[in-house]
Amino acid sequence: MKPIALTMGDPAGIGGELTLRAWLARGKREPVPPFFVLDDPTRLADLARGFHMTVPIHPISEPAETKSVFRRALPVFPVRLVEPAEPGRPNAANAAMVIASIENATRLTLAGEAGAVVTNPINKAALYGAGFAYPGHTEFLAALTGATGRQVMMLASPKLRVVPVTVHASLRDSIAMLTSDLILATARTTADALRRTFGIARPRLAMAGLNPHAGESGALGDDESRMIQPAIDALRNEGEDVSGPWPPDTMFTPAARARYDVAICMYHDQALIPLKTLDMDQGVNVTLGLPIIRTSPDHGTAFDIAGQGIANPSSLIAALRLAAELAARH
Amino acid sequence: MKPIALTMGDPAGIGGELTLRAWLARGKREPVPPFFVLDDPTRLADLARGFHMTVPIHPISEPAETKSVFRRALPVFPVRLVEPAEPGRPNAANAAMVIASIENATRLTLAGEAGAVVTNPINKAALYGAGFAYPGHTEFLAALTGATGRQVMMLASPKLRVVPVTVHASLRDSIAMLTSDLILATARTTADALRRTFGIARPRLAMAGLNPHAGESGALGDDESRMIQPAIDALRNEGEDVSGPWPPDTMFTPAARARYDVAICMYHDQALIPLKTLDMDQGVNVTLGLPIIRTSPDHGTAFDIAGQGIANPSSLIAALRLAAELAARH
Repeated sequence: MKPIALTMGDPAGIGGELTLRAWLARGKREPVPPFFVLDDPTRLADLARGFHMTVPIHPISEPAETKSVFRRALPVFPVRLVEPAEPGRPNAANAAMVIASIENATRLTLAGEAGAVVTNPINKAALYGAGFAYPGHTEFLAALTGATGRQVMMLASPKLRVVPVTVHASLRDSIAMLTSDLILATARTTADALRRTFGIARPRLAMAGLNPHAGESGALGDDESRMIQPAIDALRNEGEDVSGPWPPDTMFTPAARARYDVAICMYHDQALIPLKTLDMDQGVNVTLGLPIIRTSPDHGTAFDIAGQGIANPSSLIAALRLAAELAARH
Repeated sequence: MKPIALTMGDPAGIGGELTLRAWLARGKREPVPPFFVLDDPTRLADLARGFHMTVPIHPISEPAETKSVFRRALPVFPVRLVEPAEPGRPNAANAAMVIASIENATRLTLAGEAGAVVTNPINKAALYGAGFAYPGHTEFLAALTGATGRQVMMLASPKLRVVPVTVHASLRDSIAMLTSDLILATARTTADALRRTFGIARPRLAMAGLNPHAGESGALGDDESRMIQPAIDALRNEGEDVSGPWPPDTMFTPAARARYDVAICMYHDQALIPLKTLDMDQGVNVTLGLPIIRTSPDHGTAFDIAGQGIANPSSLIAALRLAAELAARH
């Protein structure tokens, strides 16, 4: 079993604290899989001291060392910061190291030395000054891995998997961006990833409608007949098991969820409301359509609470666990 | 304690079956409050026989008889159908009786003989032929009771209360319909009803954003600053306890729900997805802004399963129970 490569994230955010807490949880009832973090050993040791946490830091030079180190110390693949990190204050001087952490984690995973990449949250604005030219982690990882096709964000929790077709845009713009082709491309990447990465031989996709009652036969909108049904038809012609378009409000009940492996949702909140309502802290972001496995916690840098010792590591731990589960199957 | 007046609903739908099942549940762990139904005694007796249910039918001429009858028989205030009802086939010949059932229930409640009206589902298309000129129950009841101001639909379950500002329109049209004034009017009716009917002295309203992350300070839409914040400001000036605009995906977690009495939602599915995901069968529709109490089950006529004996009475029972609870407080 290969170790998981965990990135630093923005050192002014909660990533360091979460990393320490995740390591401390390794012996708990639901074990944390062996991981190493690409971070600054000195800053992590300082952080642990500040939080009164007993976390021995052990620098490593190869991921393979993780196995023997992990039980007794946090394995750290050194990426040294230029300036000390201050909680809540992103510093452009450290941006290159934040980027290097992601690059090294990806390189080691592509080389087969690590089983998967888990990313701590970054602050994109803080990276743009250092020449970072990507809208986010996903596009950067796609470039680093030479990925082709469409990458897709899945949110996975113990109770539900969702894939929003449109993501970070206003609701009005999200609706305007929707097309049959976009729905189709998203569903294809999702179905492929469920087969290859999740080991589901014949994934069952449930396609959400856009409108209340899925348009009620046209009375409440024709997007279902105009855009969503054609995508469903095309997917079925390709042999996929797709149902829908479903009325959005009744497709996330326990009985409905039992009938599919993933819900393809038309906009951010249609996917995220049921996911977070059911499992606030257990949601994990999984990037589908990359040649490597990548997961991340489902929250941001949380600059507002950084350094206070109150960050909740549940989502990072869930991300590490899911990454290990998928890597074992890969 | 006054009895609850239950309407017939469309006799081709599942209303009759639900009525019989609700009466049969009266002795169960969570008791059903005394109610009478305004329906055709013969058709109910036939239905019970067809379903092999032991439900003695007892015609009454005054709601007050309910008290002594209810334990041993279903009290029926007779509204006789013109033609026998056929499951799944709405019949315009009976439309006038469906309407009369609603009219009589409302009249008896206005007169103080019944404590509240609970409506079984109707099929509006079937009523239009009989001269019914209202978009639905709510507008009809507003006209019958001489209600002024704005009526508002609340969905209530044991875990959550939600009020959608826009309801039965496509998602695109719902966004276009939103204005500060509409949000304000909806919130005012809601706050008043929570005080007067629900007995919450100082109701806490949580206002949802429209866009992902509530617009993320404008990056994902400006509806929050342009429309929603002004409504919140105006409500606060009136002395209301209002929070928000909240990111829609995180406002329905258990911790978030503990901080408000009702969520004011911008569109149908933003309200209905969390409600049905949390409590599929326990959702009750409550009409706010009427001079009488009116609740209804949160589903339609279900013509597709009418007559099969598989209809689930949970929502009707929850509607009867909530109506009685509110009537007791009125």
